[in-house]
Amino acid sequence: MSDSEASLVYEGRHLSMVNRRGWEYATRKTSRPAVGIVAITDAGKVVLVEQYRPPVGRNVVELPAGLSGDIAGQEDEALIEAAKRELLEETGYSAKRWTELLDGYSSPGLTDESITLFLAEGLRQTGPGGGGRGEDITVHEVPLGDVLAWLNERGAAADLKLLAGLFAATDTMSRRERDA
Amino acid sequence: MSDSEASLVYEGRHLSMVNRRGWEYATRKTSRPAVGIVAITDAGKVVLVEQYRPPVGRNVVELPAGLSGDIAGQEDEALIEAAKRELLEETGYSAKRWTELLDGYSSPGLTDESITLFLAEGLRQTGPGGGGRGEDITVHEVPLGDVLAWLNERGAAADLKLLAGLFAATDTMSRRERDA
Repeated sequence: MSDSEASLVYEGRHLSMVNRRGWEYATRKTSRPAVGIVAITDAGKVVLVEQYRPPVGRNVVELPAGLSGDIAGQEDEALIEAAKRELLEETGYSAKRWTELLDGYSSPGLTDESITLFLAEGLRQTGPGGGGRGEDITVHEVPLGDVLAWLNERGAAADLKLLAGLFAATDTMSRRERDA
Repeated sequence: MSDSEASLVYEGRHLSMVNRRGWEYATRKTSRPAVGIVAITDAGKVVLVEQYRPPVGRNVVELPAGLSGDIAGQEDEALIEAAKRELLEETGYSAKRWTELLDGYSSPGLTDESITLFLAEGLRQTGPGGGGRGEDITVHEVPLGDVLAWLNERGAAADLKLLAGLFAATDTMSRRERDA
């Protein structure tokens, strides 16, 4: 925070609360943005991760994602390197082709969190996946056109950033096909 | 919070911070979920709102959205009624057809906020829009297939829930056409 109008009103271990001219919001104690990855297999399936999320008290289906620069000594990690690392850690996949899709905010009324979304294609299994550092992640592969129906059938909770990523990925891939 | 494992570590005016077994997260001081509306005009344009967001210090383009039950005396407001009210307040539109799309989390690693998304069609201008209670909202209408390019051209910041809503709306409308 280099903002004279904003004051820290609670400092947690990973998350803090700020008051900017009467507006309260949550901020992570790292200024580095988060990355999320829309990874599409050659068979047209999207690679999703499911994990327990304490804030909502249940399992949530999400894009592979994480924070850049959250490893000691690698604070300057480029976003694309963070995306490659998180995809491999969480799903075991490496990708041949990477495309930056867009960045956006997850809930700009209550947090300054921003996420940069990447498209990863040409996937090859090169690791075990499942996450690191105490994460317990289940990987799912779902046909791109069936994700909403699949979530619905399972009664699964979804992180809305997952659907945002699918929209951006679908849009980008169809523009690329049209321009080819 | 009816959760013995979760303790309130900071209580703000609208937003509080909770620690659940060592995991910190932000929670609104209302337990009612938020609603977001994908409103599509008969000309195939989606109705977007742009407003200044203090947490990120800039204007953000979003779906019309708000909290249900946030008006005194109307705490039990149904989600669909909240969606109708927010769409009218923010954009001036009423809609003939409403479809519930899905609900999901905005960032389940740092907040328990959930949002229920609705599709609104058959729009008719019945009010001035622009928001209430100190809101200062600009309304945009953008062809459904051009939203990403439009955001990109303007260099506009986006709430990722906007793209999540577009994905769900597009999926739902194309299934409906296919089944017709």
